[in-house]
Order: sequence, then C-alpha cells, then structure tokens
Amino acid sequence: MDTMEMMKSMSMGSEPMNMDAMQECIQAMNACSMAATMCAGTDMAMGSEMAKCCAMCSNMADMADACMRMMMRPMGMETDVMRSMLTACMTMGKACAAECRMHADMDEMCRYCAMACDDMVAKCEAMMTSMAA
Amino acid sequence: MDTMEMMKSMSMGSEPMNMDAMQECIQAMNACSMAATMCAGTDMAMGSEMAKCCAMCSNMADMADACMRMMMRPMGMETDVMRSMLTACMTMGKACAAECRMHADMDEMCRYCAMACDDMVAKCEAMMTSMAA
Amino acid sequence: MDTMEMMKSMSMGSEPMNMDAMQECIQAMNACSMAATMCAGTDMAMGSEMAKCCAMCSNMADMADACMRMMMRPMGMETDVMRSMLTACMTMGKACAAECRMHADMDEMCRYCAMACDDMVAKCEAMMTSMAA
Amino acid sequence: MDTMEMMKSMSMGSEPMNMDAMQECIQAMNACSMAATMCAGTDMAMGSEMAKCCAMCSNMADMADACMRMMMRPMGMETDVMRSMLTACMTMGKACAAECRMHADMDEMCRYCAMACDDMVAKCEAMMTSMAA
Repeated sequence: MDTMEMMKSMSMGSEPMNMDAMQECIQAMNACSMAATMCAGTDMAMGSEMAKCCAMCSNMADMADACMRMMMRPMGMETDVMRSMLTACMTMGKACAAECRMHADMDEMCRYCAMACDDMVAKCEAMMTSMAA
Repeated sequence: MDTMEMMKSMSMGSEPMNMDAMQECIQAMNACSMAATMCAGTDMAMGSEMAKCCAMCSNMADMADACMRMMMRPMGMETDVMRSMLTACMTMGKACAAECRMHADMDEMCRYCAMACDDMVAKCEAMMTSMAA
Repeated sequence: MDTMEMMKSMSMGSEPMNMDAMQECIQAMNACSMAATMCAGTDMAMGSEMAKCCAMCSNMADMADACMRMMMRPMGMETDVMRSMLTACMTMGKACAAECRMHADMDEMCRYCAMACDDMVAKCEAMMTSMAA
Repeated sequence: MDTMEMMKSMSMGSEPMNMDAMQECIQAMNACSMAATMCAGTDMAMGSEMAKCCAMCSNMADMADACMRMMMRPMGMETDVMRSMLTACMTMGKACAAECRMHADMDEMCRYCAMACDDMVAKCEAMMTSMAA
C-alpha cells in the first residue's frame, strides 16, 4: 500500500486542484508534523531555554495536521479558504524554522525540524502558485 | 473547576495579549469545534447532498482545535503567526457558516453550527482588533 | 447556543447509548483536554523537572480529543471499540492526574489539571456502567 | 531528511522501548491515519450507505494520530498507559478494517484503508510483544 497511490484515486470536488502539487504538499506537511512533534517531545526534557521552541513546534504540528486533513477531504475545498490556510501554515513554518535554527548546532532534532519546515513552506508556495494558474 | 479560571492563571510569554479577548476567542473556538464535529457527524447519515457540509465542518473543527491550542501555549505566541492563524480560522468560519446556513431550515445541527461559526468569527475579529491596539 | 442542547438533537446510530452519561462524559473530556493543554503549555516554561508532566498532559489532551470526537459521531459507535477507548482514556487520566498531583502544591495549573482528569475518569466510569446496563 | 532517521535520534525516557518496533508502529499508524482520513473524505460524497464507514474512519484517524504522537514524546511514556492505548487502537483498527472490507469491492479507497488498518494492527501487536519481553 502506498499513500501517494491512494491520493491519486481521490476524486476531486467542484474545484479542481493540481494533484501533483497537492500530493507533494500533503507529504511535506506530514513530514513537518512528525518532525515538529518529535522536536517538541525532545524539547520537553531540555529545560526552559527550549520553551519557545517546544510551544512553536507543538503549534506547527497541530497546524500542519489541520492543513493536511483539509487537503484529504476533496468535497470541502474552497480556493479562498485553502489560500488562507496555506498562508497561515507557511507563516508558522517560517517562524518555527527560524526558532529551531537558533539551536540547530546543539540539537539534531531542531536541525531536522527546521529542514522539514523549510521544505513544507516551499511545497505550500508551489501549491499556491499552481492555484493561481 | 472552571476552564476560564485556569486561563486567568496562564502566565504570558514575551508578547502580552489581551487576556479577556483571548479567553472569549478560545471559548468560541471550542464551541465552534464541537458544533462542527457534531454537524459533520450528523451529515454522514444524510447522504451525498451534505458531502460539502460534512467536509467543511470537519475542516472547521480541525482548524478551530489547532487555533485554540495555539492560544493555550503562551510561550509560543508570535503576533504575525497568530494573525495569520486567526485570519485562516475566520475565513474558514465564514465559508462553513455560509454552507451550513444553506440547509439550516431542514437541519437543526446546521443551524447551531452556523451560529457557532458566526460567534467564533466575531470573537476572532475582536481579538485581532485587540492585537492592533 | 448551547453545546449540550446540540447533543440532545444528535440522532443515534444502531447502538443506542445513555445520552445523559455520554453528554457528561463529552463535557468532562472537553474540560480535561483544555486543562491538560494549558498545563503542558505552562510546563514548557518551567524546566526539565516538568518534562514528564508536559509530555503526559500533551498525550492526555490528544486522547481526550480523540475520545470526545468519537462520541460526537453517532454513526460510528460500536460498543467494544467505545469500551477500549474509554478504558485507555481512563488509564491515561489516572496516570496524568497522579503526575500532576506530585507538583500540585507549587503549580496551580497542575492542581486544576489533576482535578479535571479525576472528573473525566469518574464520568467515563459512569459511562462504562451505563453501557453494561 | 528522513523521519525514521529522526526517530533514531530520539532519546528515551525512564522506560526503555524497543525502538525498531516503535518506529514500525509509528509509521504504520501514520499510513493508517492518512488512509482513514482519505477514506472518510471519499465516503462523504457517496451517500448514507457509507455513513458508518465515514464515522469509523474519522474515529480511526483521530485515534491513530493520538497514539502516534504519544510514541513521539519519549518523556511521557508509561507502560500501562501505552498498553491500553495500543489495545484501543488495535480494537478500533480491527473494527474499521471489517467495515471497510464490506465495500472494498466497489471502493478502492476502502480496500486501501482496510489494508492500512490491518498493517497497523500487526505492528501494534509486535510492539505489545516487544513490551512484554
């Protein structure tokens, strides 16, 4: 079984989306959500200097999950809602990556998480561009 | 025990927020999330003409939950991230209310859900205004 | 609008449930989820001695949310699934309350959270009893 | 970046777990959550005969997410809580797979989802066995 294979068989609702862009976006959000959950989980053991990182990564994971699920429900898609969700996810992804990058030298998890956020932001940008076309 | 009482004892991070506006926002998002989850749960039994309503309400519940949790993590708040999250939540709330209102005459759950979305949007607007001050 | 009012208008699926017990359960899970999210959010600022509390409260919030949503989807209820979900939620609630109670003297949030967990466990027990009847 | 690579760098808390079993479990829960979300999203368009499938898959996705996140927070692990969570996830996975399999012939998404549930149940069983050792 392959999740990407499943996505190809999703029938779309009234607003057709670029399926390739959407699949890459879902995959990047999924990786970002997992990375951020693990980063927050690791931060918990590291003391109060990681408090902001822990909270931002927890927020990031919740938002990536909400966004991802929206893209897996073809019947509920509306372009303007999707745009505002992607915008919020990208804004949070940039802020979370900036925070994680501040302690990426001493924490491997933060380095991974910053990369996962960056990749997610890039895939959201590509998705936004595909929607404008 | 009173959730609102708890919120008052949340210590804030570096970016002070209007706690009254935030508490009302959290409460309205919580009611909206529950209403939307129940509306979607009811839609499932009602056939394909409720497909869009079911998907949009499921999205609404996920987004309200993500937004609400962000506001309950004081260490991770950044004004620009919060603004983009509130904007996305309001955009989705308006779209979800519009959809639910289309079948509010025949479905009590949709009528409730539209009202919960409207109230949540109003509380987010008040929160946005309080952040600009 | 009143969430409890909405619940009363939920039509049930093939397996009838005690609606009073279920409504009290949903309400207690909701309060528990919010208390645990705020407790974890506060723990993040308090250093590594609160690491276990922060992780357990985060788990508690996720589980209470999952359980609550299940009870708001009448079409998907199966008695054995519901029993195992309630059992897991109660097991976690007891462990989370025990952890929170260890630092309830110095942290108001932990005291509230332990109470919310206890109340949730009691309401789940009542729900389990009503299902056996 | 590789999520599995990240998991290897998670430091464990006081209760050591079999990391190979846990990683396979997390991966299977993630695939199951995505499959169930897409299956529910597809069901929404298919009418009331898919109501139960839609509700059960929505429950499945929420529970797999809650379970997965718990396993990505090493500081909060307690053996008895984890056992009851895995048991609930497996009970739901079996029920969801049984429901999906009933319409697997006419719906590709249900066939995928049943397979993802089966695989998740198998990985949870292996994890339970590793915890007994």
